[in-house]
Parts: sequence; C-alpha cells; structure tokens
Amino acid sequence: MRADLPPRLFSAAAIERLQRVASIDSRLVLTDLGPPALERAEIILSGWGCPPVDERVLESAPALRAIVHAGGGVKGHVTAACWERGILVSTAAAANVAPVAEYTLARILLANKGADRMARAYRARRAQVNLHAEFPAVGNRGKTVGIVGASRIGRRVMELLRPFELNVLVSDPYLDADEAARLGVEWRELDDLLAASDVVSLHAPSLASTRHMIDARRLALLRDGATLINTARGALVDQDALVAELASGRIDAVIDVTVPEILPPDSPLYDLPNVVLTPHIAGALGVEVRRLGESAVDEIERYAAGEPFAHPVTAADLERIA
Amino acid sequence: MRADLPPRLFSAAAIERLQRVASIDSRLVLTDLGPPALERAEIILSGWGCPPVDERVLESAPALRAIVHAGGGVKGHVTAACWERGILVSTAAAANVAPVAEYTLARILLANKGADRMARAYRARRAQVNLHAEFPAVGNRGKTVGIVGASRIGRRVMELLRPFELNVLVSDPYLDADEAARLGVEWRELDDLLAASDVVSLHAPSLASTRHMIDARRLALLRDGATLINTARGALVDQDALVAELASGRIDAVIDVTVPEILPPDSPLYDLPNVVLTPHIAGALGVEVRRLGESAVDEIERYAAGEPFAHPVTAADLERIA
Repeated sequence: MRADLPPRLFSAAAIERLQRVASIDSRLVLTDLGPPALERAEIILSGWGCPPVDERVLESAPALRAIVHAGGGVKGHVTAACWERGILVSTAAAANVAPVAEYTLARILLANKGADRMARAYRARRAQVNLHAEFPAVGNRGKTVGIVGASRIGRRVMELLRPFELNVLVSDPYLDADEAARLGVEWRELDDLLAASDVVSLHAPSLASTRHMIDARRLALLRDGATLINTARGALVDQDALVAELASGRIDAVIDVTVPEILPPDSPLYDLPNVVLTPHIAGALGVEVRRLGESAVDEIERYAAGEPFAHPVTAADLERIA
Repeated sequence: MRADLPPRLFSAAAIERLQRVASIDSRLVLTDLGPPALERAEIILSGWGCPPVDERVLESAPALRAIVHAGGGVKGHVTAACWERGILVSTAAAANVAPVAEYTLARILLANKGADRMARAYRARRAQVNLHAEFPAVGNRGKTVGIVGASRIGRRVMELLRPFELNVLVSDPYLDADEAARLGVEWRELDDLLAASDVVSLHAPSLASTRHMIDARRLALLRDGATLINTARGALVDQDALVAELASGRIDAVIDVTVPEILPPDSPLYDLPNVVLTPHIAGALGVEVRRLGESAVDEIERYAAGEPFAHPVTAADLERIA
C-alpha cells in the first residue's frame, strides 16, 4: 500500500493486535512486490496503491495464501492469477458502508427540505424570501426516496431512513418484491422508480452492464425538482446527459463521483448552482479510515484462528460488486 | 390566523374530521377578533398571525374555553388575561419537532464530515484536493456532539443520533446526569460541553435568562474547527461576537435564526464562506406544515370527547419554553 497509509489505517492498538497473531515488521511497507519481498509471506495486507498481484508476483510468493485488503474494491490488485491459485481474498468494503450511508442520509434529508435552494435565494436577495409561496412542496413528509441498488450501502441507507415519514422504493435486479417488503421498502422497476421519486440515490456496482444505466432517457423520467445523488461510481451516469439536464435547472444533483474522477477545470459541474459537487468524500475519510484497518486486522485474527473470513470476496462476486 | 394559512394547514380530510366534532364555518378565517366575531366561540383554532387574545377580546367572547394553536409558540397571542380567565391552551409545537430535528441531524453529519469545506476547496481549485493531508480529522466516528437544551427537539436530535458512532453530550439546567444517562448521553456543564464538542447544536428556549447564553467568552471555548448550529432562536447567541469568531475562520456555523429575523443586506453572515445561512427553514415548511394542522384537529377531537389536551400549555410552562 502507499507508504503514508499505515498510520492512518492502524492505531497502535491495532498494530499490537496484529503482532499477537502474525509475524510482521510494522515499519515495512511495500509498493514493489517483486522478489524477494514476498518470499516468506503468507498474507498480503493490502491498501490503496497496492500494485497488481499478478503471475510474476505470485511466482516469487510461494507461501502466499491470502490477500486481506484494508480498503474497498480489490479489482485493482487481485488479478485472475490470484483466483487461479486459490488465494483467499477479503475486503474491508463493509467499513465504507457507514460513512457513505451517513452522507447519503444527510443529503436526502436536505434535498427533500429544499435547503440549498432556499439558502441560495436568501443569500442572493439579502431580503425576506416568501418560503410558503415559492417553496410550497419542500419538506420531509410523505416524500418518495428511490434507492437504486440493494448493495450493503443501499441497504444501510434504507435502514437509516426508517425513523422518517418517507416512502422508500428500491430497484435491484437481484432483489424481489418480497425481500424488498422485508426491508420495509417497495420494489420497483428502475424506470418506475425514477418517475416516482423525489430523491434518487445510486448504490449500484460499476459493471459493464451498469455503465450509463442513468442515461438521457432515464434522466428525463425524473420529476421536475427531483434530486439525483451519486456517491457510487461516475460511470453509472451518462455525465454529458446529466450536465445537460442540470443546466436546464429542471433537477438538482449531489455528485460525489465523476468521470474522470477529478473533473477538468472547464467542467460545468464546478459552476452549476443546483449541484452539490464533492471530490469523492462520501467513503471513509479522516477518522473514519481506521474502520478499514480494524476490519482488516479482524480478518487476519480470524485467519490465524483457522476461521473463515467475515468479508470474503470470490471471483464470482466481482461480477456483481463494485 | 393569516387568511392564506388554512389550505396549507388542513387537508380536506382534516376539515371533515373537524366538522364531525365542531360547528365550524371552514371558509371563515378571522384576523380581527373584535365583536361580534367570537360571540358564540368555545374554541379559537389559531395559527400564525393570530392577534393577541386580550382583555377586550375576551369580554366579547363569553363562551370561550380553549385556544388550540396550529403553530408553535403561543406567547404572541395568548395573553395574561387568558390565563386569568382559565382558558385552556394547546400548542402544535410538537409538530415542529420532527423537521427541526431532521434538519439538525443532517447538518451534524455533514459538519463532522467537513463536507462543505472539502466542496469549497474542490470548487475553488478545480483540481485534486489532497483530502487525507488537508482534512485528516474529518469524519463521523468518535466525534463529540453537544446538545444545548433537552427540549423536545433536543431530545429528538439525541434519539436520531443513536445509529451513529458519536459521543453525545447534553447541557440543560432542568436535566440531571441520571436522566441524561437514561437518554443514552452524558450530562455536562455548558462550558465543559462547549469545550469538548466538535459540533454544538442549540435547542434551548428563548428567555430573558438564556439571552446571549452563547457570548464571546463561550464562543472562545469552542474547539478550533468546531461547528455551531442554531435552529432555535437568534437571541440565544451574541451575534456580533459570533460574526467576529466566524470572520476569523476558526469555527464554522449553521445559522437558521438571527436577530433580526431577516438580516440587513450588509450583514457579514451573507458572505462568510464558513456559514450555512438559511432563512428560518428548519421548522415545519411546505408539506410538513400539515403536521401542525393535524395536531390541532387531534386536540379538538380530544376536547370534544371530554379528554385533556395531549399538548397543553400553562402559564408556568411559558417561563421555560420558547
């Protein structure tokens, strides 16, 4: 992993826990996995910036049994060769669930409230705003929130929405109406969900099949004044179509992920007043990052005790998850 | 009440419920209570804009027994003469609890996350922001939230904060440490709470004794980078001292209430980048307003059934509540 990561991921207590079950040199952080780095390694504890564990690396790592990732997605470094060798893989993606779901909850409540629009009107006019006349439909009562993707994050968002008087819809090809009902929400086809929701929040994985799932046709289905929230992956949305729809002022958006990840300086998304634009902040950041490290240490403790991982990843999973 | 209010407060179903238990003319909305308006009235169903029910009004309302307010505070229209006459008073203030608490929750989660600061940095630079280096302390894990005032709203905020990994402190002269513990939070003296919190949210009533309770000395107790949220009343805070503290950039603020209620056009609060300024939007607005009307209809149904009000107000209460 990147050399600056360990102190952010691991508290002194977490390092001590690691040392109790594993032989590690806590000062050693590898960014080059070439020989002889992994000569005796049984586990790779990986993080952001881990290079691909490919055929060549595996050849010089005869004892390697597992890759425990103190981060979310493993597609960047866990290669086909790892699966062929039967390397066990674990992810700390679950540690990203809480922060993304919390950020999404906050943005849903503010979107329904129309808070940004009212704040902008007040600041622009520096005078009384006739809230009741100009904003008759704002508020968090009886509004409909559409969750696209019953991923772990999508499910946590639905859970966090329970204390509020909102109708929650979900669309996910791997979920049926009965399971949605058990989650306390209503299943809908994606098109229906988009047309029925005041706020739509994306929590689907980024796959070939989900690329541009929110395209111009589907953006046009959104209600006037609706808010689209994307904390998942930029590729889920046809960004040019989104910019066009936002430029018309017809809808609002909360955009935490884009293509490319850092927008070019001339992107209209920097300037549109009806966009809350953030640089991929919804996931674990700052004090939240240690959740990733702690999750990884938990997994290594399980491995040392001969138990299965709590958060395993398989080659098949990668077709369904981000 | 103001003539434009009834359709916003009452659905057709609520009007029907009223008509089942009371003799009302649903087209009649009074803003002048002089004779003979209240000649036969047993209940005043009041709302925003209700004039004072004073000695003179009471003289022309011999049958009056109750004032049911489809709004929050009753100090504007319920006078000393009402209490002397033994008029029963009810408030729909409880219907304001949900929206204020929900707005506060959203702002607490975003404040801990440092979302506005990161969004500003990204938009200003139109380039990658080194989040980990520049914002090492952001996030909603292990942060401390201080609630000033265990009012109904303050209590609801504490309840809504339970699903998150946050430490919650409360300061309220009418609450002791045992009761705070029962609410799942920790009691602190106000000064201690201010010094220990990452976010402080005000939910105290506006009284002579609470005027400027957050003054220059107490603002100075706040941690560097702390956020002060005021959705309660502007008078709780020494606004000049707050502006000075905010202008230094040392703290952030979410300001929904000010003195005066609409700021003069030259107020620095309109321009400070570290302030989320809104024109008193946290309470019931838009679709949330019907909660007030429904609460009032519930109370009139109770009265008609010979039951006590669920949300009575007494003269003594007014010394403690907003």
